[in-house]
Amino acid sequence: MTRPQLGACYFPEHWDSSDWRSDAEMMRDLGLDFVRIGEFAWGVIEPEPGQINLDWMQQSLDLLYEHGIKVVLCTPTATPPKWLVDSMPDMLATGRDGRPRTFGSRRHYSFSHQGYRRECARITTEIARRFGTHPAVIGWQTDNEYGCHDTTISFSQTDLLAFRDWLAQRYQSVDALNRAWGNTFWSMQYASFDEVELPNLTVTEANPSHWMDYRRFASDMVVEFNRLQVDILRRLSPGRDITHNFMGRILDFDHFDVGAQVDISSWDSYPLGFLDQERDLHDQAHRLAFARAGDPDFQGFHHDLYRATSGGRWWVIEQQPGPVNWAPNNIAPRKGMIGLWALEAFAHGAEAVSYFRWRQAPFAQEQMHAGLLRPDRSPAEAFFEAGDVAEAIRSIDWPQASCGQVAIIMDYEAAWAWSIQPQGEDFDYFRLLFETYRSLRKFGVSVDFISPDQAGSRLDEYALCVMPGLFSCSPELAHAMAQTKTPILLGPRSASKTGEFQIPASLAPDLPDAIRPLTVTHVESLVTGLDVPIEGRSGSFVHWREFTSPHADADVLWQTADGLPALVRRDNLTYQCGWADPALMSDILRSACCDAGIQTFDLGDGVRMRRAGDHAFIINYAGTDFDLALLGDVHIVVGGPAVPPSGFAIVRL
Amino acid sequence: MTRPQLGACYFPEHWDSSDWRSDAEMMRDLGLDFVRIGEFAWGVIEPEPGQINLDWMQQSLDLLYEHGIKVVLCTPTATPPKWLVDSMPDMLATGRDGRPRTFGSRRHYSFSHQGYRRECARITTEIARRFGTHPAVIGWQTDNEYGCHDTTISFSQTDLLAFRDWLAQRYQSVDALNRAWGNTFWSMQYASFDEVELPNLTVTEANPSHWMDYRRFASDMVVEFNRLQVDILRRLSPGRDITHNFMGRILDFDHFDVGAQVDISSWDSYPLGFLDQERDLHDQAHRLAFARAGDPDFQGFHHDLYRATSGGRWWVIEQQPGPVNWAPNNIAPRKGMIGLWALEAFAHGAEAVSYFRWRQAPFAQEQMHAGLLRPDRSPAEAFFEAGDVAEAIRSIDWPQASCGQVAIIMDYEAAWAWSIQPQGEDFDYFRLLFETYRSLRKFGVSVDFISPDQAGSRLDEYALCVMPGLFSCSPELAHAMAQTKTPILLGPRSASKTGEFQIPASLAPDLPDAIRPLTVTHVESLVTGLDVPIEGRSGSFVHWREFTSPHADADVLWQTADGLPALVRRDNLTYQCGWADPALMSDILRSACCDAGIQTFDLGDGVRMRRAGDHAFIINYAGTDFDLALLGDVHIVVGGPAVPPSGFAIVRL
Amino acid sequence: MTRPQLGACYFPEHWDSSDWRSDAEMMRDLGLDFVRIGEFAWGVIEPEPGQINLDWMQQSLDLLYEHGIKVVLCTPTATPPKWLVDSMPDMLATGRDGRPRTFGSRRHYSFSHQGYRRECARITTEIARRFGTHPAVIGWQTDNEYGCHDTTISFSQTDLLAFRDWLAQRYQSVDALNRAWGNTFWSMQYASFDEVELPNLTVTEANPSHWMDYRRFASDMVVEFNRLQVDILRRLSPGRDITHNFMGRILDFDHFDVGAQVDISSWDSYPLGFLDQERDLHDQAHRLAFARAGDPDFQGFHHDLYRATSGGRWWVIEQQPGPVNWAPNNIAPRKGMIGLWALEAFAHGAEAVSYFRWRQAPFAQEQMHAGLLRPDRSPAEAFFEAGDVAEAIRSIDWPQASCGQVAIIMDYEAAWAWSIQPQGEDFDYFRLLFETYRSLRKFGVSVDFISPDQAGSRLDEYALCVMPGLFSCSPELAHAMAQTKTPILLGPRSASKTGEFQIPASLAPDLPDAIRPLTVTHVESLVTGLDVPIEGRSGSFVHWREFTSPHADADVLWQTADGLPALVRRDNLTYQCGWADPALMSDILRSACCDAGIQTFDLGDGVRMRRAGDHAFIINYAGTDFDLALLGDVHIVVGGPAVPPSGFAIVRL
Repeated sequence: MTRPQLGACYFPEHWDSSDWRSDAEMMRDLGLDFVRIGEFAWGVIEPEPGQINLDWMQQSLDLLYEHGIKVVLCTPTATPPKWLVDSMPDMLATGRDGRPRTFGSRRHYSFSHQGYRRECARITTEIARRFGTHPAVIGWQTDNEYGCHDTTISFSQTDLLAFRDWLAQRYQSVDALNRAWGNTFWSMQYASFDEVELPNLTVTEANPSHWMDYRRFASDMVVEFNRLQVDILRRLSPGRDITHNFMGRILDFDHFDVGAQVDISSWDSYPLGFLDQERDLHDQAHRLAFARAGDPDFQGFHHDLYRATSGGRWWVIEQQPGPVNWAPNNIAPRKGMIGLWALEAFAHGAEAVSYFRWRQAPFAQEQMHAGLLRPDRSPAEAFFEAGDVAEAIRSIDWPQASCGQVAIIMDYEAAWAWSIQPQGEDFDYFRLLFETYRSLRKFGVSVDFISPDQAGSRLDEYALCVMPGLFSCSPELAHAMAQTKTPILLGPRSASKTGEFQIPASLAPDLPDAIRPLTVTHVESLVTGLDVPIEGRSGSFVHWREFTSPHADADVLWQTADGLPALVRRDNLTYQCGWADPALMSDILRSACCDAGIQTFDLGDGVRMRRAGDHAFIINYAGTDFDLALLGDVHIVVGGPAVPPSGFAIVRL
Repeated sequence: MTRPQLGACYFPEHWDSSDWRSDAEMMRDLGLDFVRIGEFAWGVIEPEPGQINLDWMQQSLDLLYEHGIKVVLCTPTATPPKWLVDSMPDMLATGRDGRPRTFGSRRHYSFSHQGYRRECARITTEIARRFGTHPAVIGWQTDNEYGCHDTTISFSQTDLLAFRDWLAQRYQSVDALNRAWGNTFWSMQYASFDEVELPNLTVTEANPSHWMDYRRFASDMVVEFNRLQVDILRRLSPGRDITHNFMGRILDFDHFDVGAQVDISSWDSYPLGFLDQERDLHDQAHRLAFARAGDPDFQGFHHDLYRATSGGRWWVIEQQPGPVNWAPNNIAPRKGMIGLWALEAFAHGAEAVSYFRWRQAPFAQEQMHAGLLRPDRSPAEAFFEAGDVAEAIRSIDWPQASCGQVAIIMDYEAAWAWSIQPQGEDFDYFRLLFETYRSLRKFGVSVDFISPDQAGSRLDEYALCVMPGLFSCSPELAHAMAQTKTPILLGPRSASKTGEFQIPASLAPDLPDAIRPLTVTHVESLVTGLDVPIEGRSGSFVHWREFTSPHADADVLWQTADGLPALVRRDNLTYQCGWADPALMSDILRSACCDAGIQTFDLGDGVRMRRAGDHAFIINYAGTDFDLALLGDVHIVVGGPAVPPSGFAIVRL
Repeated sequence: MTRPQLGACYFPEHWDSSDWRSDAEMMRDLGLDFVRIGEFAWGVIEPEPGQINLDWMQQSLDLLYEHGIKVVLCTPTATPPKWLVDSMPDMLATGRDGRPRTFGSRRHYSFSHQGYRRECARITTEIARRFGTHPAVIGWQTDNEYGCHDTTISFSQTDLLAFRDWLAQRYQSVDALNRAWGNTFWSMQYASFDEVELPNLTVTEANPSHWMDYRRFASDMVVEFNRLQVDILRRLSPGRDITHNFMGRILDFDHFDVGAQVDISSWDSYPLGFLDQERDLHDQAHRLAFARAGDPDFQGFHHDLYRATSGGRWWVIEQQPGPVNWAPNNIAPRKGMIGLWALEAFAHGAEAVSYFRWRQAPFAQEQMHAGLLRPDRSPAEAFFEAGDVAEAIRSIDWPQASCGQVAIIMDYEAAWAWSIQPQGEDFDYFRLLFETYRSLRKFGVSVDFISPDQAGSRLDEYALCVMPGLFSCSPELAHAMAQTKTPILLGPRSASKTGEFQIPASLAPDLPDAIRPLTVTHVESLVTGLDVPIEGRSGSFVHWREFTSPHADADVLWQTADGLPALVRRDNLTYQCGWADPALMSDILRSACCDAGIQTFDLGDGVRMRRAGDHAFIINYAGTDFDLALLGDVHIVVGGPAVPPSGFAIVRL
């Protein structure tokens, strides 16, 4: 395998140009391969309307090139300058509460605004025309972190007009819309597309079909917005890779759609920030145990997800280098973790990892965000750990990445649907996927995510496929499920709606009679404490339970303590009739893996493994040594028999 | 007694008309007596302004009549169509935050809007003229669930103008208003009614007298709004009963005022939804114990309350048929409860119970709300339990309802007053009443609610009257209290204000010297954990305690552990100087019942009894059998000696 | 020492004038020296624009003078009348959410509004011209409780325009502003001052430098607003003292700046209200233990703080007289506390204490707020306890107040900075100071607060100086720190920013190389439960920890259990590398006091001591007797050997 690349995010415009040469020298000496520059720099690039200033960037690119540092350039469209916003104030994103979200930080725009799109095309063209073929430039990043700061779903009049157009395209006739949404309910009929309103300020909840289309529209606006830049870059910077930097747990747009436009999906990995912020995923004991290491699965989850979104090529383009500034609490990493996170990304197949940022800024919003260098240019902890990584990527013979053993279907529409209609206060789609993923990962199983669209053609590649909470089952997917021999674990709530967000005519799951294992007659959401134990098994259904009528050809494998079907199998389809708590999830998946011939280990809470052919990477988030002998008779390729905390090993199984 | 009636809420316009005949057949075969139709149907009735389409309703009514199904028709005014809202956008209700609440769900109107009232009169006239004398039509429901979704207290400019008019009528001169409100405080004087503002966006709290009048105004607007429809229906549909469907725990308007306009008070009873939603009334253990049965007192409370609001005639017009969609969690009922809830309503004197809804809708906001039929027309659990009820109402000889033993005064003004000025974070009037009610009901005591106005003439009908938290005591009520021999339990906080929301000139309680048992010199609200134990008694004052100076002719019955009066009696008036925790409340009421000659039982947490003359109904919400022998030597009329969970019995005492 | 003065807040305009003479007689007989009148009376003083009505006030002043009662007059500017607001609606303060805060309570104005300032000058002139030299008038209070109800930081267009002017004055060129704020970050550059926006509705957090200047601007507006009135009063009422009544824990403006304008800082002391409201300062057990006495340190903290703000002269101008109306719960004081609070204020050097209010109002917002008299004119508990105080101030020979032993630096800019950039969810500057103060006070140490500006010249007066969390260190203060021999305890987070809110060029703390004990390389905020124990000591760092590199000349006194510097000393400067929990704080300060030769006692949770030369006052908030013998061999001047709960003693040490 080509060795992984190491980089840093660099903002030369924040520093005196007299520092630039020495920066390049230090980068080279540290072993960095590339830097990412230009992000957020619109104000420097175009200080007044039309007055383009790119000479500083030229100077920086030339200097970097001279030192052998390659460059990923960014379009600066996440931070439109003040004069631009003042020229079209209706470009601002508007909150769910109806208030415009003003200039003064970043992402202050609505994706649907045509005027702003034109401005983005113009500035992208300017930069790409100048540097598209610069020898230092190896790639481009569009904008920054779509979805961050909750601007994807914007509620301005601009958005409303664009939504009406989008609906007219989708439904062609307003009667079709009224039928699809069931607007006869509560007299919500519209007489024309121009009557359609935003769903955000209604007296009680708006129609879920209305919301669902608004979420689809919002996602499509991101996709349209991104495509505009991609098209320009393809034309003006041939042969360079294009990426966009995704964030963790952002579900507001379909990352498969954006990922399909670019060459490389990249993401911004902040393990400690995410652990402290995403508190609903972890209890306090877990958060404290991993406070300085990060959750052992959050990174892997996104590594595996974003490996899928662009068809295999992916990067970590921002990697946490120390304490950050945006989590509720910003904790210092345990020694070794800053490097281990990069190695873990490589283990999951990343082509590159780039630390954010080269040097800590002493001013403005992120002054408390660490860098490889401190504000005074002295090296921070991350500088040394990045050096260790630079050495490792040169000394290790990296095994070729390979396909995972189990596929999990990631369905962005389900994320939207179940946030629109949770039906129970604890039903969160991301958490459902995440708990499934974690359960498999504790067994040492390598997981791939695939989209519902991809699933149609790829089920046969996996020994097992899991699709909890799928929103709606397309005919193509249903056909593939009927054709494949791959065991599939469905439920809870999978395929429970039509594409219009209605209950299917024959009730859920909306599968052909020829394969449907059962019919869901009704469901219940379970208040905390009201669990449904499973007969003869550890663990219970929590949050959600389904009452079902199994098909005559199906077998009830497990049942609840109150005597109802809990796990029902018909041929290769197994339906799980509730949300399994961790103990039950583990029980179900161990059994499913066993049936599927997938080897499982007991890695516990803090050690993870990713396979690469007959090799496996071992990553230790835990606070104690991990004895590789627990994996059986393995050949140690990198590392010693005991993998220390923050340690890494490669074995041949 | 005439046998109770059983019905369902039916929305023919949601289904293909080819289903209507078979619907009617199934209803008849199930034993339904009636359906409610037309609710929310404005969009179908008048798809364009002035284009009235009622033929579908004619067809439906004729079909139902043909099958012996009677009909309650609804005015569709809870869901004004889009074209109507667009023609007068200022009709929208406005939130406390000053934002209009837009089209897209329901109840998107302000009660005070004259233009919208005219439209409601017009559509009501259209429907009533067409069907007012249709032989199937036995009654009418106005609008739907006034008070739901918090639109009663609206803050638009329309509301402000109407409020100024209302104030001008009430006070005649602005000086009178300034005096009544005490506006000299903080320089809040107004020079004319046109200067009066809304109370919602002030820097710190607005004047409580200002708020109190705004709450009275808001309630009056509902009453005016309803009267308009009632007047039309009386004229165009003579001899039919009129009702409105109240909700549980809605306190935003005076239900006695609306109830007085209609023939029948009805309400929408969702035991499991309410239990999970109204969490401040129950601790977690209680919620879990009754998660599938409902709180044993919440339904009875409202049965007894709404029996009072229209002078005795009342219905449950929407009865939960399975999991609903609007509570934080939506749990499936325990087997038998869907039927038992109906029987319990009949035990409390309901003339009719109607399940909501006939068939679960597969689309729009309530697609997760169960019905008697599933979306695919297959029968749900509720279908069979409704059938059991249909049989029971035909086979049981229902004892004639009778007056309760104890009266509790329900004072809507107190609900407004103590939410405006709680003075302690835990002072909630509904909870105060509810805890009092529960305490009596655990003793097997039958309770009636009466309004402060009714109390004046009805105190003698009861063996005991309880009036905690009464806002202001009218001269008529004070006179009645002085005349009656019925023991009355007052306090905490009873009669502590004048009608203008001022402290009475002689301090609280504001009663004539001839009967006042004590003077409240000052009060304190108690933070959680700061309890005031009662000497020699179980339990404590919590939340609230009053410091008092007993009248010379009064006796201090009980005192606090710190030596102050806790329970003070003068003649038939007993004043309770604090909020009693459940143990103390039980102690006080057991003693009061004993003194009043009221027999008490120990029914525990889950069993309830309602008397009807010398008969009594036994309703078992608990998870274990109830042995009727615990009631002493009773004759079992319906049921066996052990009443099972979800079971029902009738005994003669 | 002159004996302390006792007063009450009096609102004659709330009562029938026939009561005024008898009020004055009762005040005289009770032993009151003065009353405060005129607050909030604008509506009575000027019922219509320009129609001035002050005869009632003349009558009241004359009557009071006749009975020997002196008067502090108030400007009524906290409650502009309706006609005034209607004449300039843009004077309303605007909330952070962008909504104007309307008429109907009080403080409905923005400090920056020039039109309202002119109106305030006019009404102040009217009143001062009429009564400036009235013989009863001994002083003036400007407005009421600046900062209360969160109107200091207002976000109207008026405020924005004033802010732009303020910035232009401060920076002179917009390039200077862009540099100071680091606006190159995220393309936030402004091309002119007229482009600057408010920081409140941005997509994600605004630039901290932007916020910091907005906070400084907001504070300056209060200072300008107050100066206008002070200048008029100085001119028209020569020889009278001017004060403003501060509140507890209000940090929105720099009280040293306002304090410098007036003669006397006064504050409004509501011990029980504050205890229940400021819950983040106390755990529940503590709140319950002192629910009826008040927190033993909250009053002393503010006594000591406001003694500093006007250079020594200070009053309690509103003293809680019983249950109030505005805390979450409003509890009745323990017998004796109403008097003890006054005596405690005198012990800390107050010239006067004034109970709020003379007679409880039966109407409007504060009808549940106790007074010395009840609404019916009967004496409340406070009446008798005030009488005891009146007797005590005449019978006790009050020792002369003296300088404290330890100085704590109170830095309002730090309060703003760390609320703008807490960096950890638990970093609250007030709490940091308060915990430091409490720790010293439990040792019986007398504390003075000084401002960073004052510190420059006053360090030598103290045996020890503590400055946790100082925002930015001025050259003057740094110079003084280098010159003094007084031991200084710095950190956490002290001097960690430049005045522009940037990280200092040589990192924190921003001190001259000649004295800096260490360099902070980076910091971390600690989630609850992630503590950092100190080697060989009780207690831990919590909330916040700093990683440091000690100077070669410094000694690491203590270190963390993970082997890093915890307490580092160089000469007289000791740096504390984290937020100490109470046990550790106590350990550090006991050690610091010991080194500084300050005698410490163990007064425990509920007893406090304030020195006055060789005398000391003992105040007992606890529920049990305090044995004076625990102080060693002291001479009891006032009181007995056992100080009872709510008791007071004076001893000579």
